[in-house]
Amino acid sequence: MSLLVIGSVAFDAIETPFGKTDKIIGGAATYVSLSASYYKKPVNLVAVVGGDFPTSEIMMLQQHGIDTTGLQIKENEKSFFWAGKYHNDMNSRDTLVTELNVLANFDPIIPESYQDCKYLMLGNLAPKVQSTVINRLKKRPKLIVMDTMNFWMDIAYDDLIETIGMVDVLTINDEEARQLSKEYSLVKAAKKILGMGPKYLIIKKGEHGALLFNKDEVFFAPALPLEEVFDPTGAGDTFAGGFIGYIAKQDDFSFETMKSAIIYGSAMASFCVEKFGTEQITNLSKIAIDQRVKSFIDLVQFEIAI
Amino acid sequence: MSLLVIGSVAFDAIETPFGKTDKIIGGAATYVSLSASYYKKPVNLVAVVGGDFPTSEIMMLQQHGIDTTGLQIKENEKSFFWAGKYHNDMNSRDTLVTELNVLANFDPIIPESYQDCKYLMLGNLAPKVQSTVINRLKKRPKLIVMDTMNFWMDIAYDDLIETIGMVDVLTINDEEARQLSKEYSLVKAAKKILGMGPKYLIIKKGEHGALLFNKDEVFFAPALPLEEVFDPTGAGDTFAGGFIGYIAKQDDFSFETMKSAIIYGSAMASFCVEKFGTEQITNLSKIAIDQRVKSFIDLVQFEIAI
Repeated sequence: MSLLVIGSVAFDAIETPFGKTDKIIGGAATYVSLSASYYKKPVNLVAVVGGDFPTSEIMMLQQHGIDTTGLQIKENEKSFFWAGKYHNDMNSRDTLVTELNVLANFDPIIPESYQDCKYLMLGNLAPKVQSTVINRLKKRPKLIVMDTMNFWMDIAYDDLIETIGMVDVLTINDEEARQLSKEYSLVKAAKKILGMGPKYLIIKKGEHGALLFNKDEVFFAPALPLEEVFDPTGAGDTFAGGFIGYIAKQDDFSFETMKSAIIYGSAMASFCVEKFGTEQITNLSKIAIDQRVKSFIDLVQFEIAI
Repeated sequence: MSLLVIGSVAFDAIETPFGKTDKIIGGAATYVSLSASYYKKPVNLVAVVGGDFPTSEIMMLQQHGIDTTGLQIKENEKSFFWAGKYHNDMNSRDTLVTELNVLANFDPIIPESYQDCKYLMLGNLAPKVQSTVINRLKKRPKLIVMDTMNFWMDIAYDDLIETIGMVDVLTINDEEARQLSKEYSLVKAAKKILGMGPKYLIIKKGEHGALLFNKDEVFFAPALPLEEVFDPTGAGDTFAGGFIGYIAKQDDFSFETMKSAIIYGSAMASFCVEKFGTEQITNLSKIAIDQRVKSFIDLVQFEIAI
């Protein structure tokens, strides 16, 4: 039941109305792996960093049960770097710097020890790199989950559509679902996107929660109303990590299990936004997670007998 | 356990991307009363119309179990009229015409037969008119629910704050909650607004659902994901009608009952937006309502044992 995660491991510099950071570690695969590690160990990581990436951070990942055999270190290159500034409403941000560096020519090599992959999480990357990972696995995983973003719709549409056609679950946000489907109604958008191949679609609505669709059913999970969103960076990846980690732990992906997985993913995301970067999700206890999930239950459960 | 509803009974002319209407009946109290009538009869109505208001529509209200003893008819004046045009996203609209007409000098007279009021719904009106209704009731109702809008925050702030201080439940939308509290976080906004007097606050988020707060608890109800929102006019009032109607029927307003009431209100609102104006909510069956509530249960319920 091994879990394979691919995506960026990188540096971020973040500015929010509450403060700013120097270069801290970030990247989709970092958030996904850390979040998933609370449910399923090991998390087999495929990613690439430069010689500037601190050994101490790689050790931190290992201490969370993340297998870094597949983490390529390009000693003479620099890690991917993103800098962004959030607006006051936290729902929009400006990208200040994007340095692809090692990501520009990332060739995702799958270590032989990862070939038993049952659950695959394709974090946001060029869709061609995502499909390469699928093609390099000798046996198709039981469940492939793919995250992407509007950037690839703009510059690599054909690759994106091809890769979407290869996966079981697609996760995107509401604006991206509208862009991809050319439908404003999310219900209509979901129908169109499910017609592109995936059996399941998760539409992330940020502070407004998340929707899970399959052909016949729909499930909605709210976001937890928080006093303050401190830093939204990585929330979507942390959500995805909790989702795939819970599924890998259960070794089941019925619609009922996926519903619970979305609640666990939402709980993990609610922690993520409470502090800068990965700070909060590197230090969670099982008790804290259970209490947070309990808050979700209290938030939405009601008794009506029909 | 009588239910008293006050608000506008009026004409609307609506334009959406799906079409446009001539003058059709609308107004907060029309939507609230019709929606509540599926749960509690009679609904005692206090409102004012002009001589131009069709007798057939008054009879329609009566046929739904709405007592129109308190509906003043000013034969030589005209009914309140609003015309608006929705943008493509249906989340914003332009007001094209507002003719106050009979509402300009509305004196809300409470018929003696309404004085046994246990549940009072103050639909959106000038806050001074809303507080006059409270003051004219010889005995304070068990529960007073008040709806309002940003318009009154702009032009009658002091009256609004005074009236908010007199009610048990305030319903407003997310932007209004932010304007009223000067807080962006809805959790912080809720705390401030609950400090103004109401024991409960409902924040309506349109297609993103609704939040119910009291001092210690919070409940979230989603909106049903719909293929198409045809006309959002009256959705908030229809929500409020289902909410107060369900509570009046149960004759209970514990937090648990309010949670169910919000689900019933959301179900009623989901019908409202499927057709123009009041068309859909004048022709509902108990079976259709039960099926819709079942859809809400399926949408959000999950099983996690902690």
